[in-house]
Amino acid sequence: MQLFIGNQNYSSWSLRAWLIFSQYNLDVEVIKLTLFTDDFYKTLKDITPTAKVPTLVHGDIIVWDSLAILEYINEQHLQGKAWPSDAAERAKARAITAEMHSGFVDLRNELPMNIRARRKVELSNGALKDITRIDAIWSEQAEQYPDGWLFGEWSIADAMYAPVALRFLTYGVELSESAKAYQQKVLASASLQHWLEEARLDNDIIEEDETGEVV
Amino acid sequence: MQLFIGNQNYSSWSLRAWLIFSQYNLDVEVIKLTLFTDDFYKTLKDITPTAKVPTLVHGDIIVWDSLAILEYINEQHLQGKAWPSDAAERAKARAITAEMHSGFVDLRNELPMNIRARRKVELSNGALKDITRIDAIWSEQAEQYPDGWLFGEWSIADAMYAPVALRFLTYGVELSESAKAYQQKVLASASLQHWLEEARLDNDIIEEDETGEVV
Repeated sequence: MQLFIGNQNYSSWSLRAWLIFSQYNLDVEVIKLTLFTDDFYKTLKDITPTAKVPTLVHGDIIVWDSLAILEYINEQHLQGKAWPSDAAERAKARAITAEMHSGFVDLRNELPMNIRARRKVELSNGALKDITRIDAIWSEQAEQYPDGWLFGEWSIADAMYAPVALRFLTYGVELSESAKAYQQKVLASASLQHWLEEARLDNDIIEEDETGEVV
Repeated sequence: MQLFIGNQNYSSWSLRAWLIFSQYNLDVEVIKLTLFTDDFYKTLKDITPTAKVPTLVHGDIIVWDSLAILEYINEQHLQGKAWPSDAAERAKARAITAEMHSGFVDLRNELPMNIRARRKVELSNGALKDITRIDAIWSEQAEQYPDGWLFGEWSIADAMYAPVALRFLTYGVELSESAKAYQQKVLASASLQHWLEEARLDNDIIEEDETGEVV
């Protein structure tokens, strides 16, 4: 299998898909492309209909969306264990995952993932509302699973929210105590530390993701 | 089970979730709320963390996103048959579904679902690109499955794109021949006709979704 990803400093969707391979030690060739360069488009043009990352290539099978990749790997390589085994919990995990996949638009626009930076930004009401909602999700799950991942064992929901833990670090977003504990757990995990190490080698700058005042 | 939906003239995400119940004749109590009214927020406040529709309530289980509802019903009530049975096709269906779930933002903003209207709008380049991509998806699948749904049998991917078929009708969007044939198939289906009949009884106006010049 080949997983095409973008700049590790910036590409939050790449991180989401990459995490499932790292968490479960799955064999995959990671091909890193520099976002929005000619080489990026030239390489992806013949592979994916959307020329976006992440994209997974597995023989004849091409999967060009992070959530679809996570579902595919979960089904084909993990016998479903990357979702909670309980049907009710799985439904909740999928709803929380879907919220991230389709929503939190203000947060995503105003706080782009930028791992190496430490910044201060003025947030819109929409972004503040997004933060409140994410804090509520993390806190509620932490009450049910203290010291655990969102649903106890690591799941696709954790992959979805990992880049948010990084964004909150970059922009110094304050969280409730239990949400902060979850953020710390994500940041300290071996998979994320591995990604961060590689992201530090990424020197390319994407101007539109360089927002906020340096602190 | 109870499915909470919004105004049938406008609520494209409600339609997506509702379709799986209709396609498979599944027993569900549909509760229609008028979007953005006090009653809407009051009713949903105690049920869902996001106060959005569609929301499914099944005993203690609450599912508050269209894709999560579709996955839940597929798993719990349809033994998985709402996705293609072939793994490669299922991965592709999930990628196409995910594109709609998280993307086509310009199309969704500029061509809101407004079933009863016939309008003309000026489209941005982003929206035109979205249309081109959707036409390509529909045409490519039609080549593989002539006269069929996107993947032969009806699937969750068809639920995702049904509101787009309606939008293209409302705004007179021109399509390639094979994409148009798929649009016609969607519009003529018994489920969609059932929805349209009910949508015609919806008289409330949501100003922000009333865009374009009346034709």
